[in-house]
Amino acid sequence: MAKGYTVWFTGLSGSGKSTLANRLAEIIRSRGQVVEVIDGDVIRRSLSKGLGFSKEGRDENIKRVGHVCSYLTATERVAIAACISPYKAIRNANRDLIGDFVEVYCKCSLDECAKRDPKGMYAKAFAGEIKGFTGVDDPYEEPENPEVIVDTDSEDINTSINKIVKVLERMDFLPEIETISAEEEEVIKKRLESLGYL
Amino acid sequence: MAKGYTVWFTGLSGSGKSTLANRLAEIIRSRGQVVEVIDGDVIRRSLSKGLGFSKEGRDENIKRVGHVCSYLTATERVAIAACISPYKAIRNANRDLIGDFVEVYCKCSLDECAKRDPKGMYAKAFAGEIKGFTGVDDPYEEPENPEVIVDTDSEDINTSINKIVKVLERMDFLPEIETISAEEEEVIKKRLESLGYL
Repeated sequence: MAKGYTVWFTGLSGSGKSTLANRLAEIIRSRGQVVEVIDGDVIRRSLSKGLGFSKEGRDENIKRVGHVCSYLTATERVAIAACISPYKAIRNANRDLIGDFVEVYCKCSLDECAKRDPKGMYAKAFAGEIKGFTGVDDPYEEPENPEVIVDTDSEDINTSINKIVKVLERMDFLPEIETISAEEEEVIKKRLESLGYL
Repeated sequence: MAKGYTVWFTGLSGSGKSTLANRLAEIIRSRGQVVEVIDGDVIRRSLSKGLGFSKEGRDENIKRVGHVCSYLTATERVAIAACISPYKAIRNANRDLIGDFVEVYCKCSLDECAKRDPKGMYAKAFAGEIKGFTGVDDPYEEPENPEVIVDTDSEDINTSINKIVKVLERMDFLPEIETISAEEEEVIKKRLESLGYL
């Protein structure tokens, strides 16, 4: 069975969306599915070239990312989008368009995001050099019923990834793999040693 | 083996691009590949909403269709695009972007296309109600080295489709299927009859 779906990461700039998206893509790939990460910045330079950063421009950009995801999902591929996507209405429009849609809310305080400031954008926004920056002078509308909430303020990356993977498995999007615990591994090792194999 | 590729139909309005694209999609699907037809009109209403019909607007639209095709091709799917795509430079830019690209030129005289006029656009263009219509008051730049030329002015649809399928097979994009001739079928039938199976 090959079933397409879209994992949609949303959250403030610096909340860990891209890091989690790329890590998740590796795991999905390792389980035999073909996956593509749709990078909001790449779309900005291609499909959304010339679009501004007004509310309309940003909404349109998010819709376009949604369209690309919908084509991949329709052809039974996995799309992972990582965009701030601050407005609920557009995220929900993409959910309706795509259908098989898993929303992952990267919840992280503004303080922590601003401290990380990976692209130096918060510094500029606080200095007033950038206008309409999400979380500073433009709202971020939290998802009401996301499939997953990862608390990237406090959780380590493995905890967040495991949460997402478990949900994808439970929703029958991702095939489960057999895993054995450290104790089980120890038992197997001893057994093999006693048999002279190790 | 699953290898992605894009079949790009180009030609005047009314030259048979959509008809051939949809028919080709059926054949590709019947051979086990997942294929999506990228309809220029659908892209106009979604990814290219708001884009005008100036040269820039049309170029941008064709580029966006190319981007969608590139995502499908990258995830080992088959994309079929059917757009007039009159300008060589943009078609070639899409070829470079996508890589595994098969250009099919639907060659048909303006007279014949205008006679068919499936959307009533030529009538409007000749009456001056539409400006910049390809073939009437805007140029169509013929492909120099398309992988396939189908002569939709004179050929029937099966002839055109067979040409395209043969090229896709020779380029190792489409798996060949065993076909038997009518004579071979007759021989097999007789043999089965003689053995009492029929």
